[in-house]
Amino acid sequence: MTAYAALSAHFGRAAAISNALGILQWDSDTMMPKGAVGTRADSLALLRVMAHEMVTDPRIGDWITDAEADAGLDAWARANIREIRRVWTVETAVPADLVEASSKAISICEMTWRQARADCDFKTLLPYLSEVLKLQREIGRVKGEKLGLSTYDALLNDYEPGGRSAHIDALFADLAVFLPGFLDEVMAVQGRRPANAPLGGPFPVEAQRALGVKMMGIVGYDFERGRLDVSTHPFCGGADNDVRITTRYDTTDFTQSFMGVMHETGHALYEQGRPQALLGQPVSQARSMSVHESQSLLMEMQACRSREFLQFAAPLMREAFGGSGPAWEADALWRRYTHVERGFIRVDADEVTYPAHVILRYRLEKALIGDEMPLSELPAAWNAQMQELLGVTPPDDRRGCLQDVHWPSGGWGYFPTYTLGAMTAAQVFDAAKKSDASIAPGIAAGDFKPLLNWLRANIHSQGSLYQTDDLLTHATGRPLDASVFKAHLRRRYIDEV
Amino acid sequence: MTAYAALSAHFGRAAAISNALGILQWDSDTMMPKGAVGTRADSLALLRVMAHEMVTDPRIGDWITDAEADAGLDAWARANIREIRRVWTVETAVPADLVEASSKAISICEMTWRQARADCDFKTLLPYLSEVLKLQREIGRVKGEKLGLSTYDALLNDYEPGGRSAHIDALFADLAVFLPGFLDEVMAVQGRRPANAPLGGPFPVEAQRALGVKMMGIVGYDFERGRLDVSTHPFCGGADNDVRITTRYDTTDFTQSFMGVMHETGHALYEQGRPQALLGQPVSQARSMSVHESQSLLMEMQACRSREFLQFAAPLMREAFGGSGPAWEADALWRRYTHVERGFIRVDADEVTYPAHVILRYRLEKALIGDEMPLSELPAAWNAQMQELLGVTPPDDRRGCLQDVHWPSGGWGYFPTYTLGAMTAAQVFDAAKKSDASIAPGIAAGDFKPLLNWLRANIHSQGSLYQTDDLLTHATGRPLDASVFKAHLRRRYIDEV
Repeated sequence: MTAYAALSAHFGRAAAISNALGILQWDSDTMMPKGAVGTRADSLALLRVMAHEMVTDPRIGDWITDAEADAGLDAWARANIREIRRVWTVETAVPADLVEASSKAISICEMTWRQARADCDFKTLLPYLSEVLKLQREIGRVKGEKLGLSTYDALLNDYEPGGRSAHIDALFADLAVFLPGFLDEVMAVQGRRPANAPLGGPFPVEAQRALGVKMMGIVGYDFERGRLDVSTHPFCGGADNDVRITTRYDTTDFTQSFMGVMHETGHALYEQGRPQALLGQPVSQARSMSVHESQSLLMEMQACRSREFLQFAAPLMREAFGGSGPAWEADALWRRYTHVERGFIRVDADEVTYPAHVILRYRLEKALIGDEMPLSELPAAWNAQMQELLGVTPPDDRRGCLQDVHWPSGGWGYFPTYTLGAMTAAQVFDAAKKSDASIAPGIAAGDFKPLLNWLRANIHSQGSLYQTDDLLTHATGRPLDASVFKAHLRRRYIDEV
Repeated sequence: MTAYAALSAHFGRAAAISNALGILQWDSDTMMPKGAVGTRADSLALLRVMAHEMVTDPRIGDWITDAEADAGLDAWARANIREIRRVWTVETAVPADLVEASSKAISICEMTWRQARADCDFKTLLPYLSEVLKLQREIGRVKGEKLGLSTYDALLNDYEPGGRSAHIDALFADLAVFLPGFLDEVMAVQGRRPANAPLGGPFPVEAQRALGVKMMGIVGYDFERGRLDVSTHPFCGGADNDVRITTRYDTTDFTQSFMGVMHETGHALYEQGRPQALLGQPVSQARSMSVHESQSLLMEMQACRSREFLQFAAPLMREAFGGSGPAWEADALWRRYTHVERGFIRVDADEVTYPAHVILRYRLEKALIGDEMPLSELPAAWNAQMQELLGVTPPDDRRGCLQDVHWPSGGWGYFPTYTLGAMTAAQVFDAAKKSDASIAPGIAAGDFKPLLNWLRANIHSQGSLYQTDDLLTHATGRPLDASVFKAHLRRRYIDEV
């Protein structure tokens, strides 16, 4: 057996564990009865240890070295080795006692955070969050040493391989200048639009689900390799050939779940379209979190919140819920789906204000990881940034710095991928429509095949063959910049209103 | 750490894998989309190999020897060591290449069987089933050598630890003499009863499910540690603290699913009642397949097909489906639930004819494993036994020797546990009612607490502390015999009609 064959067999076995973990995690979030929490935690912990042991197997280093010297391998195999080296370098960098300490600190901090958020009580959280931050900083430091990266960039790199804060700084600085003035313009224009009349209701769960399933089918989701279920926090998960999405239903408002399903379906189409012949190999994985988010936002924000799509969808919505009257007209639904508001909560934010929420978090987490600001000053710094970027001040920390689970659960370096994803979505959607003139009229007619074919060919089936910038350059002619995203916002929220 | 502490820590980790496997298997049978079959098979296979490696870990032998010499251990720990030795002896007995050959032969044979059954084509199945039989015989031989058992008893011992064919021969010989004449009597009595009028319908799935959930709650099933779902073949599965049962719904007949749910709930109550403090340890496991089946049959056959219970349940059934008229009276429902018929299919058989289906299979599989009959003669031998035991001859092999998946899937030595379970159920239920006079009136009033408390104390919480005969002796005053079962049949089908 060649070194490369040994490597791919080994990572194929590791994928069998990841796939098991994916289904067990999905079950924990959708099906598991309460009383099984402890039993399940034991199973997940053991399988995670086993998965970690597999990707840090002492034989891997030699296999990689030998495989890298193998001149007979094709581009996919070479990219696979590159990805394996990346995963292996990162996974072997962190000593086991640091992993364990961090994992314990996160468990306690997450639990404390749930109560602290409910109580608007940052003080109680502070020592626990401080411990998580300290350990994340240490993890970033040891990874950074191995990778030749700064501490923050090393953490970012786990979610966004090749992503660098110097580049993000520039992109976000541009947006931070653009957004406040633009937001004023949008609010002025919006103030002249008619208000959204109520849609009535209630909207039965079964009807919402049926409409969601129908729309998933229309955009090309393959139910032979996935499912739609319910969970508290919507997600796309599961396993290879088994890409499961979730939503939550509010019987007083179907519009949230409807777009939530389209968002998760965007993620799922990416997962279902990854290179079939290489499933299980690291090179078959989605390229990065920003590319993943670009696929959900392309579907939700670019395609499904467009006037064209809502012209197509409005009759289906009316039919699903027996809706009628002005509030159910396509134009009214489009106004509802493009409503902009200076809010406090990131997950409720619209397309225009969302980047401000992300820029704020990015600035703060970079300062905290870089030890440039004491954690105790987080609430005040948060509120100051909110005022600067969005012009509002949260009335309490529950609606301020306590709102997200990311930091308490060890997710440092993740936030910027949301807005990188939004910018990527705009750039990819624009390129796709220019490359195939049937995409835009297809969406207006409920025919997503042209769009899906383009995404399959240019994004999904590419897996991790390229680095992110190269993937974007191949697909859109250039690496990521903010201009298409800004142009999209201006067109949708000013020009086309 | 003592040897015993090392052993229990090790088997606790093995349980985390079994629990993961239990949930993944449940998911495969209830939730998994078709396209995930191959991916899931890889995950299950890898986890099974890991579980096997854990229970055959080379350190276990010494740990057992040292732990057995530890005078300070209590009865539970000693029983745990005994169970660990049993599992370890059996799992280490079979060479890896034999396990692999058998597993492959079973895969192909099961697939072939599905088609062969549909086509009534035993000839096509013969070479594949012959291979499975040959390998099972070899597995039984090597296990038997280690355990000092005959080949058949070694296979039986996997499902029924301590079970011996000499004992089963005697029990079944007794039944085989009793049943044919008794069946004639029953059919004569039944012929004089009024025929069952149709119940109408349709019976919506949601109403059937709601009634099932209600009944599960009434008998004491804990939904905080389990679920009810749908699968093609009903089962009780899942994990520690996560005991999931399934059913299937027929909208033209609710009565099958109703009793199916009570049957699986009987299994589930056993699982939910196993010794909590020792979950994960082999001694906490259910004692054997016959004891497991005794708990499902106690619930279904002994308790829920009784006149007393159906007096209680009839109004709930009428309410659930809006049923009315003579067919919905308790007495008519009882007649329906105690209808006896000389049928061809085991899974459709009633309480009176079921043992004949089992005795037939037991006789044949013992002869086949013992190489006393060529496999090619199976169809003829099957039909001859059907004629002898039930007085009917299957019109084809689909309704004859091709009906069950057990043999094609390697389940040799399993069948007798069904009827051992039926006899055990009668004996345990009789002892319970004699021990606590509030059990019978409780069931008539829909109060299952007295019964469940007795079962919890005498069966469920005992796990594998005792061997089966000792468990029964502790619970009922004597080891298993057929007399209570026969008396139960005579009372229900002759005396009380």
